[in-house]
Amino acid sequence: MAALPHDTHYRAVENLLYEWARAIDENRIEAICNLLLPDGRYTVTSRFNRDRGLPLAVIDAHGAAQLRDRIKSMRIANVYEPHHYRHILSGIQIVGEAGGCLEVRSNFLVVRTMDLDGDMAIYASGQVCDSVDVSGEQPRFRRREFIYDSRVIETLMVIPL
Amino acid sequence: MAALPHDTHYRAVENLLYEWARAIDENRIEAICNLLLPDGRYTVTSRFNRDRGLPLAVIDAHGAAQLRDRIKSMRIANVYEPHHYRHILSGIQIVGEAGGCLEVRSNFLVVRTMDLDGDMAIYASGQVCDSVDVSGEQPRFRRREFIYDSRVIETLMVIPL
Amino acid sequence: MAALPHDTHYRAVENLLYEWARAIDENRIEAICNLLLPDGRYTVTSRFNRDRGLPLAVIDAHGAAQLRDRIKSMRIANVYEPHHYRHILSGIQIVGEAGGCLEVRSNFLVVRTMDLDGDMAIYASGQVCDSVDVSGEQPRFRRREFIYDSRVIETLMVIPL
Repeated sequence: MAALPHDTHYRAVENLLYEWARAIDENRIEAICNLLLPDGRYTVTSRFNRDRGLPLAVIDAHGAAQLRDRIKSMRIANVYEPHHYRHILSGIQIVGEAGGCLEVRSNFLVVRTMDLDGDMAIYASGQVCDSVDVSGEQPRFRRREFIYDSRVIETLMVIPL
Repeated sequence: MAALPHDTHYRAVENLLYEWARAIDENRIEAICNLLLPDGRYTVTSRFNRDRGLPLAVIDAHGAAQLRDRIKSMRIANVYEPHHYRHILSGIQIVGEAGGCLEVRSNFLVVRTMDLDGDMAIYASGQVCDSVDVSGEQPRFRRREFIYDSRVIETLMVIPL
Repeated sequence: MAALPHDTHYRAVENLLYEWARAIDENRIEAICNLLLPDGRYTVTSRFNRDRGLPLAVIDAHGAAQLRDRIKSMRIANVYEPHHYRHILSGIQIVGEAGGCLEVRSNFLVVRTMDLDGDMAIYASGQVCDSVDVSGEQPRFRRREFIYDSRVIETLMVIPL
């Protein structure tokens, strides 16, 4: 049986995805900015829009600085009912290579818990399409594209996925 | 500390399970037929029936051709409200060897999203008992047995798990 | 790119976590006692209490023998509606080393299915903080700390997580 290509990078890529999720779940959200390349891209789109080529995204950050700004405004300006996420990731596969980066696919499920009443629900599920740069000392995201399954996600997404 | 037996095959087996799930989630359902041996077996049974030795299964395909037929009828004949799945897999373990194949266990959770209103729910959870043939160039399933936890799954399962 | 530290132990640690979950899901709950060191610690606490340093825990077993007692009383004395769990684990990371053990983080989601009516729901989600001893032939837990997200978990937790 042939070995999988890119197998040597698998663990580091997997760990990068887990690191992003855990930073958010542990409310150290600012830390995700260091996992995105300075000129990287981070988007959150519905499957409905994406399948139709519609450009509208819930989040669309061009670069780590823009993502940092968004998180800052979340900390300072946004008024919202306190809640936190729990990420469940699955099916991480390195499916190819493009532009010197690894193309990665994975599935996600986010459970949201409201701090006040403890209400717990599936907030979002979907697929992530990542492009990961493994040329440096630590792997980082060139592109993260979250595509969530259901259009009925609440319009205001405060915490990034 | 001793290494786990079968460790060299782990990544390829894991990738095979992910490939099956992703083909369904991305609506390339026909592709799963190539992951099952021509004379392989694919079944979907409730834990209730399985624990009692009751033979009734929601899906019972004897071979890749029969599975292909079922998917074809889904595409052409079945009338159902459009929906899609999101597979979350976990706990993949190679637990032994039998008949020249690896015995694999894993847990699954499938979130179903209705295309029209975006309604999202846990459709099924359970365990998969797989028998994987790793003797060829690519690993393939000799047997896939999905055992779902709840009897209240809707009778008509259109899309395979 | 540098390799991850502790990478050689990763698979064995992952398998240990999966083994614990599968023993419970397959109703071989007694088996988890063999995965905890004789003087190990197993606790289940809410995020709410933990963040405030409140000591109250739903389960707090000092050692494998105490855990065995608890499971025995569950089998013999507790009166409860029959149900079972399905564990979905994700994001397993070895984050450091302390006292000769590996420090491990992971996320969990437990789906609970009632045997009688088949009712299925997210019972708990959260993070696990593990300390794993890999010095012996088989890895074992020195400490397992389940921290669940929602305070509204039902007070009586019969089956351990």
